[in-house]
Amino acid sequence: MKETTLKEIAATLGISITTVSKALKNYPDVSVKTKNAVLALAKELHYTPNSFAVNLRTKESKTIGLIIPEVVHHFFSGVINGIIAEAEKNGYLVIILQSNESLELEKKQVALLLNKRVDGIIMALSNESNDDFHIKEIVAKGIPFVQFDKISKLIKSSKVLINDQKAAMNAVQHLIDVGCKKIAHIRGPENPQNAIDRFLGYKKTLEKNGLVYDSKLVYTCKRVSFEEGFEFAKAILDNHEDVDGIFAITDLVAVGVLAYFNEKNIPVPKQVAVIGFSNWFMSQVITPKLSTIDQPNYEMGVEAISLLLEEMKCNKENKVFIPRLVELETKLIVRESTMRNN
Amino acid sequence: MKETTLKEIAATLGISITTVSKALKNYPDVSVKTKNAVLALAKELHYTPNSFAVNLRTKESKTIGLIIPEVVHHFFSGVINGIIAEAEKNGYLVIILQSNESLELEKKQVALLLNKRVDGIIMALSNESNDDFHIKEIVAKGIPFVQFDKISKLIKSSKVLINDQKAAMNAVQHLIDVGCKKIAHIRGPENPQNAIDRFLGYKKTLEKNGLVYDSKLVYTCKRVSFEEGFEFAKAILDNHEDVDGIFAITDLVAVGVLAYFNEKNIPVPKQVAVIGFSNWFMSQVITPKLSTIDQPNYEMGVEAISLLLEEMKCNKENKVFIPRLVELETKLIVRESTMRNN
Repeated sequence: MKETTLKEIAATLGISITTVSKALKNYPDVSVKTKNAVLALAKELHYTPNSFAVNLRTKESKTIGLIIPEVVHHFFSGVINGIIAEAEKNGYLVIILQSNESLELEKKQVALLLNKRVDGIIMALSNESNDDFHIKEIVAKGIPFVQFDKISKLIKSSKVLINDQKAAMNAVQHLIDVGCKKIAHIRGPENPQNAIDRFLGYKKTLEKNGLVYDSKLVYTCKRVSFEEGFEFAKAILDNHEDVDGIFAITDLVAVGVLAYFNEKNIPVPKQVAVIGFSNWFMSQVITPKLSTIDQPNYEMGVEAISLLLEEMKCNKENKVFIPRLVELETKLIVRESTMRNN
Repeated sequence: MKETTLKEIAATLGISITTVSKALKNYPDVSVKTKNAVLALAKELHYTPNSFAVNLRTKESKTIGLIIPEVVHHFFSGVINGIIAEAEKNGYLVIILQSNESLELEKKQVALLLNKRVDGIIMALSNESNDDFHIKEIVAKGIPFVQFDKISKLIKSSKVLINDQKAAMNAVQHLIDVGCKKIAHIRGPENPQNAIDRFLGYKKTLEKNGLVYDSKLVYTCKRVSFEEGFEFAKAILDNHEDVDGIFAITDLVAVGVLAYFNEKNIPVPKQVAVIGFSNWFMSQVITPKLSTIDQPNYEMGVEAISLLLEEMKCNKENKVFIPRLVELETKLIVRESTMRNN
């Protein structure tokens, strides 16, 4: 790739590099004639002023790195939009990297962002991330860093979260309130803290209401997919025909459950009430409409980048920044899939 | 941000930079003792081997830039996954930038990628992109470049497309084949070539079948949203009660149409048959299930990066690369929303 430099322009016009640089920056002490000659040649040679290079004085690249498990996910898409909107307002561009839930890829991406000299990093861990050495590196290098959604508790950084356990308790309590006596849970993988917390919320709520917790009623997703919801719905009814409520780790899985029930003409919510998590767009357009927990994903993005910008500002002014934990409120959304009148 | 350099390590250990560099690369002519000392200090100082820096010999950064209008979009998510999977296999990381359908942001992102010295760029234009000077810059600088989906016809680069006009003709012909006599079209914005082509496919198919084309039956989306589908469905029935078929620019809009019809108990497909475009995931889980045109989005991503890698390879070997146009096949998917027996 051919890259035009100030040096080439200077050489071609037989003037000093300083003069070329001054001309491009429109300094008063360069003649209009010279300025025009420089600008004309720069355009002709497709010279890109290095506006995004690390500014040697401020050490800023005006770019922020964002690493997320998957962009296709409704929840993450909302977060991305919140982050980009706020970054834009503050003159930063956002570089997005998708880890595909792979720890190995995630590590490479952290190394890339550190190398590309981004001014800050926002990250949600992949489901595989149990080792966090690569994340410690970010903090050790003093790069402003914010974790959201799927985080490493041990890392000292700002964090933007919802209270997954509390939200799951609201979801399961709602199932109990509409009369469910035997509730199954389709949970997420073992590692992610949010899957663990939603499971604990489920377990605690059963016990709080004097319902027996039965580990056989807990089904664990590997990929957290529509297909798993469909298969587990069949497994649940085949093995526990008296299950009358299902709490799924996320709406996509719950939609898989509803698809199976619709196919088998199992009445929802009459025979089995179903509730999901995250309030995906499709949940309000399917039949029956899915009850769920609404997560403020756009706001989560805005909070995350606001914390990052604040830390970046403190660093620039050599002020100490104390990492903060921001917890956003979730909301129970009651729709047809749990509307039973007892 | 503090960045440890080979120089620091060399100074601390009182050895030459060359020795440090050789030690890190595990050259045989450096003693084990020195190697261990270097590695230990490098780890202690959180030294990141500059594996992602532009390699001065090969001039490669092992990164590829991807600019897309919005990651939340079902279609683009599929493309992203195809691109990342293939990039991974070939040892490249993908930097994703979301233009939010904004030309201004898109221009900044192109400048950023050129500045970050990515090895190649894959891009789908934003709906606002009518001026393509920033894209000409990519080609002028000799950066391997592939356009997909929403492209600029005038730019000399490889392109991965579907035949939008032909696909739209299949969709509208299907509506006619199931007995529709008065078909409305909810189209996309004015600029994007694919919106124009799908509209032309609609118009030509009506004429081919001896049906009158009426511009009053064409409704134009600004944001291509669920809400617009809902509103236009109402407008269509309020102003043209005898419309018996609707072809929507994309499934999201068609789902908005179905939501309005479900709310008003308008029988679909009996009174109005509805077909979308792109085969979004939700289309197979809503009621009635939506007929649509399937686009091979994952394959589109794989094709795009394969062309890019080929161009990058030619550049490295100083061979001439002739840009190619790859057209992928689409498929009509017939579901409940158009299943009428005449």
